[in-house]
Amino acid sequence: MQLYSFFNSSTSYRVRIALTLKGLPYDYLAVNIRTGEHRTTEYVQHVSPSAAVPALVDGALQVSQSLAIIDYLDVVYPEPRLIPLDPVQRARVLELSNAIACDIHPINNLRVLRYLQDVLKVTPEQKEAWYRHWIHEGMTAVERLLVLHGHGTWCFGDSPTLADVALVPQIANALRMGCQMDRFERAMAVHAFASAHPAFAQAAPMQQPDYTS
Amino acid sequence: MQLYSFFNSSTSYRVRIALTLKGLPYDYLAVNIRTGEHRTTEYVQHVSPSAAVPALVDGALQVSQSLAIIDYLDVVYPEPRLIPLDPVQRARVLELSNAIACDIHPINNLRVLRYLQDVLKVTPEQKEAWYRHWIHEGMTAVERLLVLHGHGTWCFGDSPTLADVALVPQIANALRMGCQMDRFERAMAVHAFASAHPAFAQAAPMQQPDYTS
Repeated sequence: MQLYSFFNSSTSYRVRIALTLKGLPYDYLAVNIRTGEHRTTEYVQHVSPSAAVPALVDGALQVSQSLAIIDYLDVVYPEPRLIPLDPVQRARVLELSNAIACDIHPINNLRVLRYLQDVLKVTPEQKEAWYRHWIHEGMTAVERLLVLHGHGTWCFGDSPTLADVALVPQIANALRMGCQMDRFERAMAVHAFASAHPAFAQAAPMQQPDYTS
Repeated sequence: MQLYSFFNSSTSYRVRIALTLKGLPYDYLAVNIRTGEHRTTEYVQHVSPSAAVPALVDGALQVSQSLAIIDYLDVVYPEPRLIPLDPVQRARVLELSNAIACDIHPINNLRVLRYLQDVLKVTPEQKEAWYRHWIHEGMTAVERLLVLHGHGTWCFGDSPTLADVALVPQIANALRMGCQMDRFERAMAVHAFASAHPAFAQAAPMQQPDYTS
């Protein structure tokens, strides 16, 4: 298996956690999205039509979109399962994962921040306020979901699921950007516990071959 | 079953299509997101912790996030199946669905456009350019995915999947906002075919009880 990844991309981070939790070895193919390597004709034509990281190659299959990749891994390599089979547990895990993957991450990712800066010419303070606003909105919803439905040491129970796989990179991003996260008590407790897990630690940005400070 | 929905919300529209395709009757509970009904304490505490539409109630389960809702419906009411079981077909469907649900819709939804307008004080022209930019970026990726992997009259084959359920509302939005969509030939062909399907037509904004022009 090959994973096209950027160390600091939180969607790549999600897939790295899933691969590591499942004990699946992979070649790490670094794509520097800061310098636009994901936009080259070569990459778009042959790897990711979405012009994005991550992208997974598994035999004849080449697929992009982190949640689609993790669902694929969960179907083909089900141990340990990250998306529960029970309909209600599954709904809870996907609800939280999508609250992060749809409602938080896309609005604060690199290309949007660059548009704000380069096209709309916002000030650094306005850009920072934007980032914090969507973290606050989105994490408030995530925290409510965890308080209502969460249990155990992970988001939902005593083993990691896709919800944890989505949560940890998002919180890591928010902390890196200096957001005040203490108020999200349950989310931060899961983050502290999960970050110390070997698979999560191994998948962290600083442990990747393309890491730069 | 009850569905909390707003006629013009494309994520509500997705769930309405799924419910109608599966022939599942439901009570339509209108939530006006333009006037902030999704932000009332009552709604957030008792219906959607994410303060968003859609939200589904099915017996004891209350769940938000359109893709989580549709996955739940697909597990519990599998006919007709919208997310294929075959791992590769499934990956293709989820890849395209997430390319819309994560990479296009969230950046152009009401709350983001309002932030641009009310907080960043962008001009109407800048807001329109923003909208068109993300439609163009996102639909370029969607079109590439369809050209590479699409086949049949629907996105992937001869029956509707989650990919069509995500695509039709997104294109309807883009057309309503006056985006130039002709260049996305394959996507527009699927849209034309799918929009005429009774379940898609019945789920359209204009057919909803809370529709206003």
